[in-house]
Amino acid sequence: MPSPREASSPELLSALSEAASGIKTTIETMLPLTDAPENKLVEAMRYATLEGGKRMRPFLVIECAKLFSVDVMRAKRVGAALEFVHCYSLVHDDLPAMDDADLRRGIPSLHKKYDEATAILAGDALLTLAFEVIADAETHHDPYVRCELTSLLAKASGMGGMVGGQMLDLLGETQSFDIGQISRLHRMKTGMLMSFACEAGAVLGKADDSRRKALRNYAFDLGLAFQVTDDILDVEGDPAKTGKEKGKDAAAGKSTFVTTLGAEQARMRAEMLVHQAIRHLHVFDSRADVLRAFAMYVLERRA
Amino acid sequence: MPSPREASSPELLSALSEAASGIKTTIETMLPLTDAPENKLVEAMRYATLEGGKRMRPFLVIECAKLFSVDVMRAKRVGAALEFVHCYSLVHDDLPAMDDADLRRGIPSLHKKYDEATAILAGDALLTLAFEVIADAETHHDPYVRCELTSLLAKASGMGGMVGGQMLDLLGETQSFDIGQISRLHRMKTGMLMSFACEAGAVLGKADDSRRKALRNYAFDLGLAFQVTDDILDVEGDPAKTGKEKGKDAAAGKSTFVTTLGAEQARMRAEMLVHQAIRHLHVFDSRADVLRAFAMYVLERRA
Repeated sequence: MPSPREASSPELLSALSEAASGIKTTIETMLPLTDAPENKLVEAMRYATLEGGKRMRPFLVIECAKLFSVDVMRAKRVGAALEFVHCYSLVHDDLPAMDDADLRRGIPSLHKKYDEATAILAGDALLTLAFEVIADAETHHDPYVRCELTSLLAKASGMGGMVGGQMLDLLGETQSFDIGQISRLHRMKTGMLMSFACEAGAVLGKADDSRRKALRNYAFDLGLAFQVTDDILDVEGDPAKTGKEKGKDAAAGKSTFVTTLGAEQARMRAEMLVHQAIRHLHVFDSRADVLRAFAMYVLERRA
Repeated sequence: MPSPREASSPELLSALSEAASGIKTTIETMLPLTDAPENKLVEAMRYATLEGGKRMRPFLVIECAKLFSVDVMRAKRVGAALEFVHCYSLVHDDLPAMDDADLRRGIPSLHKKYDEATAILAGDALLTLAFEVIADAETHHDPYVRCELTSLLAKASGMGGMVGGQMLDLLGETQSFDIGQISRLHRMKTGMLMSFACEAGAVLGKADDSRRKALRNYAFDLGLAFQVTDDILDVEGDPAKTGKEKGKDAAAGKSTFVTTLGAEQARMRAEMLVHQAIRHLHVFDSRADVLRAFAMYVLERRA
């Protein structure tokens, strides 16, 4: 079991920053500016994907792919596709009809910077581009792998995954959820995409079932831990660091891990989940140390 | 060259109605109702896809696939995926921030029937489901074919296709376009998905390049002809038949084929395009007669 100190290990920090810069370059290449009149759409897609963000999901794809010695270019392509899906969901969630958020990552949300129509379309185009990137032969020479990634990504982000979870989240504004329902909501809304991130690394590397399952389970627990710490940060976080308004969930009347369990119990649950996530990695040697340190980082994050 | 009478040939009418009912059943199977709390999302997706619609795109997939003796179940799956993309685009286009349409197919648009948030999410989920369906092994046993379909669909519907075209369409409300720009707009906004419909039939049937190109060109001209007749119907159509408010484009200040060319020239252009579309089919024997008749039908449609 790593000590909490490892959460900010130099290896983790360098892997995180390397993933972030690699993904930024990959995304820039995939969204070239042109002089066509509809270029405004590409500008908005760049705004949604290039202005900050922790790049946690691409980092997970890259780190998990490394375990199977996958060409990092391939992992970065899948990471970029996943980031497109993540960013499109933020853009649509921020819309006035949804969470009505004026700020994202400390800067104006997309519909505030541009307009609502552009935000809707930029989100749609990002989601579509994700599948275009995955299906391209550059992502993997084996079409079985590309089809499997397409299928997993669609399931994780569609009606039985992220979008279904967002629907639940909206319903949660008018009805209260118990802890099982809250867990299910977050499993759908954010957990399945986290699982995709880790599993995609295994799929790219044609990993055996036990290793693939280990990474899926790691991501499952980590994703839930991430959400619990998100709920804690919503109450206790520093808006200057989180880039989000404080107490937004409570104001919206949403049931969260904190409103349901209390802050202390929520913190204990996050710890339990993180340690459980790390235990799933026992099938891997020290090459998974960065993933272990990352789990601790999720527990201790301030943003 | 078929005579205009063939536009309502019994073969065409039966093929259209068979495609429509086959697609309806396929879509119903893909959107099963559950008792989960987020079922509202599935209900909205069913409302968007099962309440009417001409099913023109699935019809084209099915008819083009028939030329290569493709299993109709496969063509119906691709047709359903394409219909999901088409319907999601209508749902998002109807939103207040976009075309702000209260009616669609003569009944309340999705955000009027439900609410804006549900409409945004149902659109997102339909687009995602399209790719899930295409990538599934049931669509074709050969993963190369599935990847190619995924890639073509993403390109036709993303920033360089439908969504880019919709962006142009919105920009057209504040600036006037010449005939070349209008053609490009519609090529992107609707033409590329029509081309996908026909090309998908060829891809499913592993057709040679010349036949594949013939179908793509047929769809290209037919798609543009369809848009020209749409512009004519916007001015001259009967709202009871079209299910749309009359003169909506003109009211929005959009440049259309009719505002730019005049109704008479627009009609001549539609005729020219339809005859050109039919000429591309010369590489096919009488099995393509339904496609020939369909082109005439596009010219003479009243809804």
